[in-house]
Amino acid sequence: MVDVAARFAEIVGADRLLTGERVSEDYAHDESLTCEPRKPAYVAKPATAEEVSALLVAAAEHSVPVTARGSGSGLSGAARPREDGLLISFERMNAVLEIDTGNQVAVVQPGVTLAELDERTAAAGLAYTVYPGELSASVGGTVGTNAGGMRAVKYGVTRHNVLGLQAVLPTGEIIRTGGKTSKISTGYDLTQLIIGSEGTLALATEIIVKLHPRLPHAATVLAPFGDLTQVMEAVPRILASGLTPNILEYIDNLTMAAITYNEKLSLGVPDSVRDAAQAYLVVGLENRDADRLEGDVERTGELLGELGAADVYVLEGGSARKLIEAREKAFWTAKAAGADDVIDVVVPRTEMPGFLAKVRELATAAEAGAVGCGHAGDGNVHLGIFCKDNEKRQRLLHDIFAAGMACGGAISGEHGIGTAKLSHFLDLEDPAKVALMRRLKQAFDPTDTLNPGVLFG
Amino acid sequence: MVDVAARFAEIVGADRLLTGERVSEDYAHDESLTCEPRKPAYVAKPATAEEVSALLVAAAEHSVPVTARGSGSGLSGAARPREDGLLISFERMNAVLEIDTGNQVAVVQPGVTLAELDERTAAAGLAYTVYPGELSASVGGTVGTNAGGMRAVKYGVTRHNVLGLQAVLPTGEIIRTGGKTSKISTGYDLTQLIIGSEGTLALATEIIVKLHPRLPHAATVLAPFGDLTQVMEAVPRILASGLTPNILEYIDNLTMAAITYNEKLSLGVPDSVRDAAQAYLVVGLENRDADRLEGDVERTGELLGELGAADVYVLEGGSARKLIEAREKAFWTAKAAGADDVIDVVVPRTEMPGFLAKVRELATAAEAGAVGCGHAGDGNVHLGIFCKDNEKRQRLLHDIFAAGMACGGAISGEHGIGTAKLSHFLDLEDPAKVALMRRLKQAFDPTDTLNPGVLFG
Ligand SMILES: Cc1cc2nc3c(=O)[nH]c(=O)nc-3n(C[C@H](O)[C@H](O)[C@H](O)COP(=O)(O)OP(=O)(O)OC[C@H]3O[C@@H](n4cnc5c(N)ncnc54)[C@H](O)[C@@H]3O)c2cc1C
Ligand SMILES: Cc1cc2nc3c(=O)[nH]c(=O)nc-3n(C[C@H](O)[C@H](O)[C@H](O)COP(=O)(O)OP(=O)(O)OC[C@H]3O[C@@H](n4cnc5c(N)ncnc54)[C@H](O)[C@@H]3O)c2cc1C
Repeated sequence: MVDVAARFAEIVGADRLLTGERVSEDYAHDESLTCEPRKPAYVAKPATAEEVSALLVAAAEHSVPVTARGSGSGLSGAARPREDGLLISFERMNAVLEIDTGNQVAVVQPGVTLAELDERTAAAGLAYTVYPGELSASVGGTVGTNAGGMRAVKYGVTRHNVLGLQAVLPTGEIIRTGGKTSKISTGYDLTQLIIGSEGTLALATEIIVKLHPRLPHAATVLAPFGDLTQVMEAVPRILASGLTPNILEYIDNLTMAAITYNEKLSLGVPDSVRDAAQAYLVVGLENRDADRLEGDVERTGELLGELGAADVYVLEGGSARKLIEAREKAFWTAKAAGADDVIDVVVPRTEMPGFLAKVRELATAAEAGAVGCGHAGDGNVHLGIFCKDNEKRQRLLHDIFAAGMACGGAISGEHGIGTAKLSHFLDLEDPAKVALMRRLKQAFDPTDTLNPGVLFG
Repeated sequence: MVDVAARFAEIVGADRLLTGERVSEDYAHDESLTCEPRKPAYVAKPATAEEVSALLVAAAEHSVPVTARGSGSGLSGAARPREDGLLISFERMNAVLEIDTGNQVAVVQPGVTLAELDERTAAAGLAYTVYPGELSASVGGTVGTNAGGMRAVKYGVTRHNVLGLQAVLPTGEIIRTGGKTSKISTGYDLTQLIIGSEGTLALATEIIVKLHPRLPHAATVLAPFGDLTQVMEAVPRILASGLTPNILEYIDNLTMAAITYNEKLSLGVPDSVRDAAQAYLVVGLENRDADRLEGDVERTGELLGELGAADVYVLEGGSARKLIEAREKAFWTAKAAGADDVIDVVVPRTEMPGFLAKVRELATAAEAGAVGCGHAGDGNVHLGIFCKDNEKRQRLLHDIFAAGMACGGAISGEHGIGTAKLSHFLDLEDPAKVALMRRLKQAFDPTDTLNPGVLFG
């Protein structure tokens, strides 16, 4: 114990290694609603890839499990350390190394937050389009979870926007994968394998992300519908129209009531319409040209009308921003309302109506609540689960996940498995795939140093 | 020998197993210019995933190496079988299983050609946007190589457009990865790992691809430049403008002369402009709206003028199509002109001028020719190499690949390593990465049954 702490301290500097009382509560958890906090034995704050490498080698030698932490905003317990473990916090590796306008990429250290990257890219007229609800998330953490967010419907998720990595293998080797190009056919794609691996395969110490021109004109259209199925059926039609919305979210009436109440938001929807609405569709549009945007807004309004919207509201800049922000905070709203878990099953978008009907049925049978909103364009349904009894809730979750998979979907669209959904993953996933994933884990991490207990138990 | 042939025949049916004289020359090679044809001992034509699985199990038991073949249009020798090996040809697994307009995906068997998929998606108003020069390529083969093509600048390469697979592991297990959704964070991304693995990890027996609305209005703009560096410098500026071209190709003057001569193509470029042109930029634009397209064409013309184009030509439909087709056939033109190899180094797009200057220098020193064209928007430079002496040519290739890598690029952008570039890959790639890739290969294929000799030698 003492030995290995001294070794870690030697690597990062004594003031960058926390143990015992100096480890604050914050490092004990992420934002998962169901994972008990666990304080790690050590927290190290490296400044370079070489330090990360030396930490991993030392940890492997002493059989100390290692968990990486970005901002701890994850929702699956994957950044929650082990009690006997080392937490590597990337908070000091937080430099934007380069905004390369010619190649439209940024090169960043893993601890850079999305908020900071947004600010820095804005100054160059560019944008990083991975935009999960929580902008305090770190770029390294989004690599860990393959984060999505609202703009994925147009720009894809983290996987589609990370072009290359510097990564440290559990064996201590520092490799570079990919590059400032969006195509490479030269051996296996290690970048893609590391993305979404929840800190179990390698630690990203530098990340090359793709940027897009920041389009100057944007609008938000809100449409209440009398019926959730109608909303769901509208989604494929909007995407088939060629309109390319950058936001396409659904919000059910209970969630809308909660978030507008919480945020004191007035959207100009008359009481009569609101009372009849079962769900809302939020459509974001953007363009480099104001006239074209106006044309798209008009076309969207017509289309929503044809698809059965009770009415269509083009929101003013201020209230549009507030609605989007409120939607981003839906997780906090659910938490405040007493949700016992929040999940994010993904299904083919045409399966959403059937899947949600099944969820309602299962929740009713379990005397539980399941309400939410979601990235409708991606078939990614976020549900707040209200069910105090843990055993009952686990059974319900099992059935909901199984229903999603039966529709051709998966347990998580963007939050990951972590430890929160581990037992369901191992229970429901094809054993041949889990066995193959274990062999891949072994190929990267023969000593099982990185995040043991996550993904495989 | 006899035993295993009987076993293969039992699996696929006697008339679907070819041996000896019945194996035609066609199965002995792909389109690589440097790989000697090699007739396989066996060719099997399975009809189902179960048959593929049984073939792999039998082959592993008898230590028969297995190579998958789509259409054999690959350029790296990766579909070239071993003399003692089994070639699994997917020619009978060629059904389009589903065009799902709601989810905008197609589900296809691996032997479906891109030409057929294009026809089938067109009928539904949709398009599969992976569009390499050779439309006889199979979807399975494009998964094998992570094929790109001209439209990658807007829509990405195969990797960005394949959402899921049914795949047979070398151990015989049949798994399903991904699905009809574009985001999943549920374990490692096996889809992405298999894509681009050149038939060394698993065989795809079903492929879910993403479709896009087929935009009805398209235009092609051609701009001659006095200087290749100017062309290269124009590329990032066009992409930064927000114009989102779906084609952005450069063609050097020698290549343009050859392809226009070969295809008897007249583009309306006056002799004086043509004589002064060192290179051309081809910009493709498309839109769902004719007026918007016109606006974009105009803006593109202005921009090209500002960027130093000698002139700008908006090509008529017929000659635009012919030019694109001629560009697609540039490989055949190079081959007919006596090229000794064709390579496709990828570099960050801002590095193209420097890289091409270095290539000229290296080629001159080696008394060799290196001319070409390329997917300029992606930094993917296709070069015909003219150098008869094999040893000298290998030295030149080594230096060109090293120069590309020194610019932050990679040996191949879309053709792959196969056996053609194997020695250079093993020579130049980071040994830690190659060792990791070998361990991944081992995790999938413990008996080294799938395409031994490709990627690892
Ligand atoms: C209010 C709220 C809204 C949210 N909305 C969304 C949303 O819309 N979409 C979405 O996808 N997510 C959303 N999330 C979840 C969360 O923001 C994302 O999961 C994000 O990716 C976590 O980033 P982080 O830096 O906080 O990572 P952490 O929680 O610190 O870590 C996440 C995982 O990444 C690993 N990791 C961290 N750093 C590295 C590294 N350098 N290399 C390798 N692995 C590393 C960790 O070990 C862990 O497995 C939301 C969360 C909240 C609280
Ligand atoms: C004139 C010409 C122009 C070209 N232009 C381009 C271009 O612009 N962009 C580009 O990217 N390529 C281009 N190519 C190369 C070629 O078309 C692509 O590499 C294509 O992906 C090969 O498809 P195929 O079906 O012919 O594959 P094959 O050559 O048969 O096989 C290619 C690889 O895939 C593997 N494979 C085949 N089927 C499967 C399966 N079901 N599961 C797993 N692995 C499998 C094979 O083992 C092999 O490793 C061009 C080729 C020619 C001749």
